[in-house]
Amino acid sequence: MPTEFSITRRVQFAETDMAGVMHFSNYFRWMEEVEHAFFRSLDMSIVQKHDGGTISFPRVRVTCEYFAPAHFEDVIEVKLLVTDMSEKSIVWEAEFVRGGKRVARGQVKMVCCQMDGSKFSSISIPDFIRAKLEEGTGGSRDGGSGG
Amino acid sequence: MPTEFSITRRVQFAETDMAGVMHFSNYFRWMEEVEHAFFRSLDMSIVQKHDGGTISFPRVRVTCEYFAPAHFEDVIEVKLLVTDMSEKSIVWEAEFVRGGKRVARGQVKMVCCQMDGSKFSSISIPDFIRAKLEEGTGGSRDGGSGG
Amino acid sequence: MPTEFSITRRVQFAETDMAGVMHFSNYFRWMEEVEHAFFRSLDMSIVQKHDGGTISFPRVRVTCEYFAPAHFEDVIEVKLLVTDMSEKSIVWEAEFVRGGKRVARGQVKMVCCQMDGSKFSSISIPDFIRAKLEEGTGGSRDGGSGG
Amino acid sequence: MPTEFSITRRVQFAETDMAGVMHFSNYFRWMEEVEHAFFRSLDMSIVQKHDGGTISFPRVRVTCEYFAPAHFEDVIEVKLLVTDMSEKSIVWEAEFVRGGKRVARGQVKMVCCQMDGSKFSSISIPDFIRAKLEEGTGGSRDGGSGG
Repeated sequence: MPTEFSITRRVQFAETDMAGVMHFSNYFRWMEEVEHAFFRSLDMSIVQKHDGGTISFPRVRVTCEYFAPAHFEDVIEVKLLVTDMSEKSIVWEAEFVRGGKRVARGQVKMVCCQMDGSKFSSISIPDFIRAKLEEGTGGSRDGGSGG
Repeated sequence: MPTEFSITRRVQFAETDMAGVMHFSNYFRWMEEVEHAFFRSLDMSIVQKHDGGTISFPRVRVTCEYFAPAHFEDVIEVKLLVTDMSEKSIVWEAEFVRGGKRVARGQVKMVCCQMDGSKFSSISIPDFIRAKLEEGTGGSRDGGSGG
Repeated sequence: MPTEFSITRRVQFAETDMAGVMHFSNYFRWMEEVEHAFFRSLDMSIVQKHDGGTISFPRVRVTCEYFAPAHFEDVIEVKLLVTDMSEKSIVWEAEFVRGGKRVARGQVKMVCCQMDGSKFSSISIPDFIRAKLEEGTGGSRDGGSGG
Repeated sequence: MPTEFSITRRVQFAETDMAGVMHFSNYFRWMEEVEHAFFRSLDMSIVQKHDGGTISFPRVRVTCEYFAPAHFEDVIEVKLLVTDMSEKSIVWEAEFVRGGKRVARGQVKMVCCQMDGSKFSSISIPDFIRAKLEEGTGGSRDGGSGG
């Protein structure tokens, strides 16, 4: 059963550009925010200690498609759906929805890595992380920046 | 009576830098977020139509002092306190508080302007805006980005 | 003949994150920088007046793959290669190269639009823009931020 | 004799906001860029190894005043002038100049610190760093992002 999770976020002024809309690069920051909120909802952090080292999930490929612009103070739901988990990597999709209408859609492929300083070595996803991710949640959080 | 307002915000990963702490420039973005949330709490937007034009409040001077670093996933209260309002300008102070301890303090001076494209002309703060700002609120909002 | 263009850019401190590397979202900002420098090299701006309106090129799909992390003060060449131009849209690829080794690769699909406020309507790429883009350049610019 | 140094920088699209001008928080990123370029011009990095530890200069107070907006693709000189150096701290001022006219002015106070993870302990500025900073340079660099 696919895991779904979402946050609600408001477009901030500093996230807009001179075209009057949210800058396209900020959708990736929002994707990261929902991902990290998802980990927190499972009582984990995206950066965690394990076996005397530090584990995290650097991205190896990210994509975003834009269907409609987002404007200052728009309230947007950002949904996360885990679509694939292999030995070392996770693929998940993001949907950006405003008033029932999808404004953007993204995808992230990330790989479980041992972080040594800023050097990353891929490892198998530890069982306790895999178990939590599979359990997942149907929950959602209010992550709306700026109230 | 001074006007106070606050939001609660979580430090996001993209807001950290290689020193492992929130980048100093992001405190200014948080100041803007609490300011705009304050306006919304008074049923206004920081950018609003008035008399056939567009009014906003560009900054003329901003300051921030840093007392302790903020880390990834820290939950921080950002308080806004209006300390001065003259004919055309507003001065307000920000306090960043984590677990009862102040980590930073900022100040913003902004001027009411008629926005014509990207040209700004200072004007007297319209009475309806002044009235709302003076009424203020003691309220607070959950603005914690990323849940 | 494919059009190629490049800038050279240095990783800035504010572009790093707590993992000690350039945050993945910033590659998209760099893609935009090389794209706009490419337009300037052809004596155009990415936002330009035409026929009494304003034309620009909002993105409809962007992608980035990451092969190796980029660190603070790394000097990276960002190459732009136009790979497809249809009636209304342009597809181009970015390569991020450090010391002869590719660290990331991106792709952007953008659509020529009439910009009316923050509403975008797709239009055919005007002939004078198409001609300039097809002429292209083999040139490169020093765009290294921060010297 | 005061130390002066400068870079030249172009306003990028992602640095603008919906008011059509450079967002006020980005001036602080530019201040950091000129500061780090200044250190590089003296054959140092702002983050450096020393005595088996890592030294850097976190900010304790920053200020910016805005005199005129900066627009997309504007070319702006960012000047750094060291105005005070005590045992542990450095104060320097920034001037943002476009076409001979000052558009903004900033000030930074930073303290020499031993960095242990993300914990900072203030220390006396090491002699070799002090000597280099005092020698300074009258030079300038082309730091114009995006060519």
